[in-house]
Amino acid sequence: MQGDAIGEVVLSNDPSFKPGDLVQSMFGWREAFNASANKVRKLETHGLPAEAFLGVAGVPGLTAYVGLLHIAGLREGDVVFVSGAAGAVGSMVCQIAKLKGHKVIASAGGTEKAAFVRNELGADETIDYKAVADLTGAVAMAAPEGIDVYFDNVGGDHLDAALANAKTFGRFALCGMISEYNVASPQNGPRNLLMAVTKSLRLQGFVVLNHLNLQPAFAKDLATWHAAGKIKWRQTVFHGVEQAPNAFLGLFKGKNIGKMLVKLS
Amino acid sequence: MQGDAIGEVVLSNDPSFKPGDLVQSMFGWREAFNASANKVRKLETHGLPAEAFLGVAGVPGLTAYVGLLHIAGLREGDVVFVSGAAGAVGSMVCQIAKLKGHKVIASAGGTEKAAFVRNELGADETIDYKAVADLTGAVAMAAPEGIDVYFDNVGGDHLDAALANAKTFGRFALCGMISEYNVASPQNGPRNLLMAVTKSLRLQGFVVLNHLNLQPAFAKDLATWHAAGKIKWRQTVFHGVEQAPNAFLGLFKGKNIGKMLVKLS
Repeated sequence: MQGDAIGEVVLSNDPSFKPGDLVQSMFGWREAFNASANKVRKLETHGLPAEAFLGVAGVPGLTAYVGLLHIAGLREGDVVFVSGAAGAVGSMVCQIAKLKGHKVIASAGGTEKAAFVRNELGADETIDYKAVADLTGAVAMAAPEGIDVYFDNVGGDHLDAALANAKTFGRFALCGMISEYNVASPQNGPRNLLMAVTKSLRLQGFVVLNHLNLQPAFAKDLATWHAAGKIKWRQTVFHGVEQAPNAFLGLFKGKNIGKMLVKLS
Repeated sequence: MQGDAIGEVVLSNDPSFKPGDLVQSMFGWREAFNASANKVRKLETHGLPAEAFLGVAGVPGLTAYVGLLHIAGLREGDVVFVSGAAGAVGSMVCQIAKLKGHKVIASAGGTEKAAFVRNELGADETIDYKAVADLTGAVAMAAPEGIDVYFDNVGGDHLDAALANAKTFGRFALCGMISEYNVASPQNGPRNLLMAVTKSLRLQGFVVLNHLNLQPAFAKDLATWHAAGKIKWRQTVFHGVEQAPNAFLGLFKGKNIGKMLVKLS
């Protein structure tokens, strides 16, 4: 089985790696391996726990950072709406927007997730979309002044609600549309995309792999925020490579809160 | 009846206007009037025929200019797709893209409009959307390499076809969605907006009134292009204010080719 891993160099014939260096790799479930220097990436932790780079400091965190700050171009005073707010990406969007002083309206599905978003991530207004009949109305109630930035993880009705509630010159970062992934013939495209014209909205899709150049800046910012106690994340740790199958299968039973990790001995 | 008008100053008590100056106004159908200086705009023709500023050099032309060059950010080598290409805005989009050396795929409805777009505006590939069963396939055939820029005047199926045929990092200028205007409850939002994520597309709506600062640059460029014989437009002229009702009613019978004008004596 494949799995992103972080480990320590024990022995190296390559001058760019020395024993004790942390490296990131993707060589499947194993406790040790030999590899060419160009098959592993050296990890600069900036003082963050190394395992954070398998989760919050990795792709999901970078996605939130890039989408919010560079694609949506977050500006002072912006009201931010984020869907899928309890997820790996959404929870980082919430926290980054909050620590930068923004009003955040967060949508998540179910009472438990909504409570997590409200109580732990600090969203100003939380919408449990499974409990509201009129999502557009719920966003309007949460942000009567309108929204400037929408971070879209789900598409569909959420995108419609954001279009309806956007202020003029609003900016949308389109990160994923999970509502469309398993639909053979998607029917629920946004019904009111005309709002993009009348309100001069910018909708911009992005794929984080095209923005890996921002990873060092993100890791540095994240380390600063973490040191100041301004950002939090959860992880679930199983111990020993022999627990890897249980950890993996546990993903499908929801046995994890936050990123599922296996610590090797 | 209201109507945008261009006239000549006969007498002025305001030092910023002198007899012979051309001014633009919106005072309804009349041959002469008194008005405060701040109710008329001085017209700088840059050598263009004055009446052009009621049509091609006015709002529709500026819309094409702003959308193509500033919203979509036209770059060398871009393949351009435009819908509503026979219209006031679309026909300018076609011509500006062509004179800048781009490959242009133009869609219009009906054989007559398609012929106008192909023969007079010089589009490289013309699609009569009323005659094709599969618009997405037709665009793919016209631009097998994909499109970089889409200038959207109509929304609906055209937007879907553009999403399906866009290259990575494609830019869409959303100018109008005529397919949605008369629909009580729009159902035909784009079905494949997910492409905006996977292809990192930028969809940007705009309203030309927010970009009037670009009018002088546009008028200057248009005058240069016109002098070089690189741009053409049509207009239909009725003579005498007494013909204004006929001219107006003629709009609904399609008696005009290009902008409908009334020349006052």
